[in-house]
Amino acid sequence: MNKNKIFNDPVYGFVSIPYEIIFDLIQHPWVQRLRRISQLGMTHLTYPGATHTRFHHALGALHLMNLSIDVLRQKGAAISGEEAEGASIAILLHDIGHGPFSHALEEKLVAARHEMISIRLLESLNRQFDSRLDLAISIFLDTYPKRFLHQLISGQLDLDRMDYLNRDSFYTGVMEGKIGYDRIIKMLNVVDDKLVVEEKGLASIENFLVARKIMYWQVYLHKTVLAAETMLIAAIQRAKELYLAQNPVVITPPLSVLFEKRWDDPDLQPEILDAFVQVDDVDVMILLKNSLYSDDYLLRTLARGLIQRKLFRVELSNHPQDSSRIEELRQEIAHTFSLDDRQAYTLIFTGREQVEIYSRDQDQILIYGKNGQVRDLNEMADFDFLKQTVIKHYLCYPRLEQ
Amino acid sequence: MNKNKIFNDPVYGFVSIPYEIIFDLIQHPWVQRLRRISQLGMTHLTYPGATHTRFHHALGALHLMNLSIDVLRQKGAAISGEEAEGASIAILLHDIGHGPFSHALEEKLVAARHEMISIRLLESLNRQFDSRLDLAISIFLDTYPKRFLHQLISGQLDLDRMDYLNRDSFYTGVMEGKIGYDRIIKMLNVVDDKLVVEEKGLASIENFLVARKIMYWQVYLHKTVLAAETMLIAAIQRAKELYLAQNPVVITPPLSVLFEKRWDDPDLQPEILDAFVQVDDVDVMILLKNSLYSDDYLLRTLARGLIQRKLFRVELSNHPQDSSRIEELRQEIAHTFSLDDRQAYTLIFTGREQVEIYSRDQDQILIYGKNGQVRDLNEMADFDFLKQTVIKHYLCYPRLEQ
Amino acid sequence: MNKNKIFNDPVYGFVSIPYEIIFDLIQHPWVQRLRRISQLGMTHLTYPGATHTRFHHALGALHLMNLSIDVLRQKGAAISGEEAEGASIAILLHDIGHGPFSHALEEKLVAARHEMISIRLLESLNRQFDSRLDLAISIFLDTYPKRFLHQLISGQLDLDRMDYLNRDSFYTGVMEGKIGYDRIIKMLNVVDDKLVVEEKGLASIENFLVARKIMYWQVYLHKTVLAAETMLIAAIQRAKELYLAQNPVVITPPLSVLFEKRWDDPDLQPEILDAFVQVDDVDVMILLKNSLYSDDYLLRTLARGLIQRKLFRVELSNHPQDSSRIEELRQEIAHTFSLDDRQAYTLIFTGREQVEIYSRDQDQILIYGKNGQVRDLNEMADFDFLKQTVIKHYLCYPRLEQ
Amino acid sequence: MNKNKIFNDPVYGFVSIPYEIIFDLIQHPWVQRLRRISQLGMTHLTYPGATHTRFHHALGALHLMNLSIDVLRQKGAAISGEEAEGASIAILLHDIGHGPFSHALEEKLVAARHEMISIRLLESLNRQFDSRLDLAISIFLDTYPKRFLHQLISGQLDLDRMDYLNRDSFYTGVMEGKIGYDRIIKMLNVVDDKLVVEEKGLASIENFLVARKIMYWQVYLHKTVLAAETMLIAAIQRAKELYLAQNPVVITPPLSVLFEKRWDDPDLQPEILDAFVQVDDVDVMILLKNSLYSDDYLLRTLARGLIQRKLFRVELSNHPQDSSRIEELRQEIAHTFSLDDRQAYTLIFTGREQVEIYSRDQDQILIYGKNGQVRDLNEMADFDFLKQTVIKHYLCYPRLEQ
Repeated sequence: MNKNKIFNDPVYGFVSIPYEIIFDLIQHPWVQRLRRISQLGMTHLTYPGATHTRFHHALGALHLMNLSIDVLRQKGAAISGEEAEGASIAILLHDIGHGPFSHALEEKLVAARHEMISIRLLESLNRQFDSRLDLAISIFLDTYPKRFLHQLISGQLDLDRMDYLNRDSFYTGVMEGKIGYDRIIKMLNVVDDKLVVEEKGLASIENFLVARKIMYWQVYLHKTVLAAETMLIAAIQRAKELYLAQNPVVITPPLSVLFEKRWDDPDLQPEILDAFVQVDDVDVMILLKNSLYSDDYLLRTLARGLIQRKLFRVELSNHPQDSSRIEELRQEIAHTFSLDDRQAYTLIFTGREQVEIYSRDQDQILIYGKNGQVRDLNEMADFDFLKQTVIKHYLCYPRLEQ
Repeated sequence: MNKNKIFNDPVYGFVSIPYEIIFDLIQHPWVQRLRRISQLGMTHLTYPGATHTRFHHALGALHLMNLSIDVLRQKGAAISGEEAEGASIAILLHDIGHGPFSHALEEKLVAARHEMISIRLLESLNRQFDSRLDLAISIFLDTYPKRFLHQLISGQLDLDRMDYLNRDSFYTGVMEGKIGYDRIIKMLNVVDDKLVVEEKGLASIENFLVARKIMYWQVYLHKTVLAAETMLIAAIQRAKELYLAQNPVVITPPLSVLFEKRWDDPDLQPEILDAFVQVDDVDVMILLKNSLYSDDYLLRTLARGLIQRKLFRVELSNHPQDSSRIEELRQEIAHTFSLDDRQAYTLIFTGREQVEIYSRDQDQILIYGKNGQVRDLNEMADFDFLKQTVIKHYLCYPRLEQ
Repeated sequence: MNKNKIFNDPVYGFVSIPYEIIFDLIQHPWVQRLRRISQLGMTHLTYPGATHTRFHHALGALHLMNLSIDVLRQKGAAISGEEAEGASIAILLHDIGHGPFSHALEEKLVAARHEMISIRLLESLNRQFDSRLDLAISIFLDTYPKRFLHQLISGQLDLDRMDYLNRDSFYTGVMEGKIGYDRIIKMLNVVDDKLVVEEKGLASIENFLVARKIMYWQVYLHKTVLAAETMLIAAIQRAKELYLAQNPVVITPPLSVLFEKRWDDPDLQPEILDAFVQVDDVDVMILLKNSLYSDDYLLRTLARGLIQRKLFRVELSNHPQDSSRIEELRQEIAHTFSLDDRQAYTLIFTGREQVEIYSRDQDQILIYGKNGQVRDLNEMADFDFLKQTVIKHYLCYPRLEQ
Repeated sequence: MNKNKIFNDPVYGFVSIPYEIIFDLIQHPWVQRLRRISQLGMTHLTYPGATHTRFHHALGALHLMNLSIDVLRQKGAAISGEEAEGASIAILLHDIGHGPFSHALEEKLVAARHEMISIRLLESLNRQFDSRLDLAISIFLDTYPKRFLHQLISGQLDLDRMDYLNRDSFYTGVMEGKIGYDRIIKMLNVVDDKLVVEEKGLASIENFLVARKIMYWQVYLHKTVLAAETMLIAAIQRAKELYLAQNPVVITPPLSVLFEKRWDDPDLQPEILDAFVQVDDVDVMILLKNSLYSDDYLLRTLARGLIQRKLFRVELSNHPQDSSRIEELRQEIAHTFSLDDRQAYTLIFTGREQVEIYSRDQDQILIYGKNGQVRDLNEMADFDFLKQTVIKHYLCYPRLEQ
């Protein structure tokens, strides 16, 4: 079979598959599964174009890796063929551990962050591929000596972020999130084994960070997006409770495994992983559709809200909501929807979101001056406005005016 | 509630909702259902970006309708506010009768073309909206006197086609399918109650038709796309047979109604319609996922092929395949997969696709000369190459070299 | 003649000419002259695509005016047909007083800012057009009661800036300068006769200001751009000196008028204006080309530098250069090019550039909250980073390493 | 000096300079001169964005050459470093012999086609660069054995055409002229020393040819464009006649050399070439500006028409205009403008334009089938509509209705 495959990517034009093993990995059912996991979950309820998938994101990030390796090699960075392949595998598979609807359901479905699941799946794939993923895993885990390769996969200027900003901006149509990824990549270099950006690219970095900020407030934490995500998490949580309490709720077999088993029980892990790779957005969507006429008021309300787009209202605030406000709201809800107090209370959700556009604590972005000096973005006052941690408390509840 | 809503559309920028009734219709569960019906079915298995939905297409076509009405009014066409609203409603709802995976499953799920279902649903919506859809339905059915309004919805240069070419080109990344829709719309006019294109727009019309041709061969009838569609239809057909023969097959309740009932039985229609509007891509996807371990060889093979992207091979030919070729293939398949003759034969699919880029028979495209004369595209020899009917016979079967 | 003209604009698609008087004004030789005045002067020596003209910018700003008026009217702002026409004329002609190579030569060619010349030319056009520009001039001068119309033409968020950021970003290829103009315009509104931006557009405003900042440092004050501009001003200055001292220098007749006459002599003004409207980039370019073999060392050096792209070096600094640095440089130049001290000194240029992305002092940008409150961007700490005045001192001299 | 230079290209993003000699050639005054030669002459009078230059086109074609060489090498074509450099030089310099306003003035200014001048200039550059252009010249002249390299520079699918279609479409805003250059280039291959396109790229080739057709009728032979070009040629012709007859006409010294000398006189060639490389659009523009008040009626009329955009009318016809039509026109012109018969006649221009989108006679486009077979586009009936020679006769004269 011709394995020199080319994909069409509306974002980048053409994306070539650089190595045969990459082609084989893409064919693997676990990677194909990412076709059924939307990149932005329920965001399409707000931005109807945002139906893109983790699969396409993985291919896009792979493309940026190839561009980056070309640039770095041209500038003299020593990257062997094996290392290039390893870095390509690592970026392709960096999201392999994502569950349905991406981040939203991690906590509810498996009590583990997706990075941890990714590692287990990478190890399993490595066995299936005769240890040919050793180097990729080492880069992924940041145990490989040339640490700049890890930085390309996970850091404040990694290719994951670059692709998702590009792609999310493209598919949502929020043009302000567009970044000059080609310019940034052309400005990458390696100094003392660290990824740096040449000084000429400073404006592009500023644009990148501001685009990220804009995408947070316009998309990722948009009130309607937040409402849909909150409702989705609550619906799954409720379905799980009902299922574990042996109430009637129609779910798919692998999802029932995830509901039943405890992740921290070491004996069960193969079974959980096995169920995990069978679950995708379809399992969650059918659960919602099957719950449209559920006897349970809460589950039914949430399912209808998500399927028929009757989204809750979200209020954002710099401070946690005080209890009197919540109590007042509870009463209004009870009155409006003729519910008892307990039921009304289950329809109110609170929580907080924390955003750091540029984190002082993490692996910082380094700027490589024309004079050969390397400066840390942390030290540049011009960027202070991007280094704050913003915390927003949200309050989410059914619209009362309907 | 603020009903002066704006949608982000990556294809057009911003799309405004022009009338309050449009806003209310968009909120209706039957329109929201189009969010779960992909515009291009399984095409994303070939073009990973093509995950866009009928819902977004409907909004896009609505946007083009607003642009067109503005242009036509500026040129003096008499279009009342009521007519503009009616045309907007008609274009918004033109695909309301689409079943899951768009065209693919019409025949198998309901023995009716989507236009017929659309009409039933429009009539029902009209009752729900106190007859406020009367004018829209009249335009839709081409019984309204100003027939150019119907032409904007259904014709060889309608806004449906314009939007789907734009959108499919955008999301697949097949740039050659991009059309100069804004130029075409600026060149529209009405002469003697017929939609015409001003002569200056002739090149844009040629570009539009060639883009359509390219999209057919690059996308709609791409071999892998055709393979996936053939497999999907076969899988549903097989599931239906199994279900009706009372074999175990896990399907959702509304899908079972569509499997059981006969469309042409007038007594059952409300029940069928009621089931129909509950069915979307999710019902089909979960059927495929639930069939991955089916006892039935054929259903299992097709489901795995679609879920894990092991697509069949397609051969296109100008002539029907002769039976000796099929017999030969059957033997190879039986041998390769250790199947008996009957089983092997069920894995071979044949059929034909017919394409007319510009049809001489339908409502033709009229060109409005500077001298005031109206010419028919049929009479222009320059366009002859686009007026042929192309018929391709396909043969679809499992890859033998795996 | 058909005056319902459409222009192709690569930036916006199609730009319609909304009024017949606009069409007639575009035909006027003074507006046609803007076709021969580049928008960004010598910037194309750094960004080769930046060959766009003031003429195209004027049409683009006109297009944005039409979009804005539509949006504001939809939101209920009272804008009569006459006012809309006036605002359209005012934006079309806002740069009518620009001399060749835009800002660069204002000071050297006429001792007047382009806005002053614009007013004189507007008055003259008004006489030629039977006072039909009265309202436009009133808006231009900000004497018209509905002051928001003036804000659309001249303010911190005017359509002039929006078009030039769009256009300069497009033609230079500096994608980071792209702004979401359509979103900003959709968010415009009028409150208490003042232009405001609805709160939902805040991210777009941030993006707009950051884009402006990026364009300043990447394009408008790019070192090579600054070098070319400095050289151009110096060349004209030198040619003028030589001409006034009756040395041989080949210049066009209208340019000689501008060299000879003093702007502040009221008797001469008609003659100066008459010469002014005959001068464009061509007069300056031919002066440079004619000076390639000039006997004057300085003029010859500058002309060759600009024509053959041998651009001087620019150093930017936060402080004025101290005299010892300049003296040192003078000696190196004298040595390298075998010049005497005086000549060497004429090849060194110093000056300063001052940038305010958002000025606290000018007409501020107002944000219109959902609660109906209007806030001033000045009061929002998030934008402080954009409110600083940055002053850069430059030192410009011939490259010594050649 | 850092010679690893990157250019911003709005069309392609970034264009890298691949070899140091390329960098040095770009610095040469003869290449810099292309900055002052517009790619599309007076087309900007119709499409105001079309102000791009031959210089940018040369860089763009260079970029496509680099992409093509990468693709061909990946597919196994043997292209040495020296050959790649040679092909890059050849494409960079392929238009070095273009005179001002591109094709329009070739005939009038020098009685030679630009390719011939190119060769002379290449030879001279080769001497200046110590014979380092030998291989490039050999490729340019098609005397180099690997003939596919020449095909990339000059053929029916060369990178010159690909860049100019891309670029002209981009800058005019005629989106229908956009081609899928990246897809075409990805589909290039070499078979038997000939450039071929893989079968999968057939739709892209059709799109390319139709785009070319559209660009001809929408842009290159647009009536207003044709009018401006005809007027420009006539103006230069008239200026030359006046000059040679010793009438007063202000022209630049190098232009006067081109007017005086005969190209076919071998003794004079160095002098002509020397003058030629000093002439660019500026010399022609200043001639027009200087002729606005010429005593000569014809020259003055043409100059004003071009500078103030009072363009003549053009009629296109499939047949040469008969003499009675011309006589009739002459009388009308004489009457309208109060001219005598002879003068009126000089304002009427006739001529013909011939277009072949795909020429059967030239080096044909070869399609490389999956079965390994190479087919000639000539043999494919689907493309017949693009293989016709279209001849249009034009008649150009002043608008009478003014």
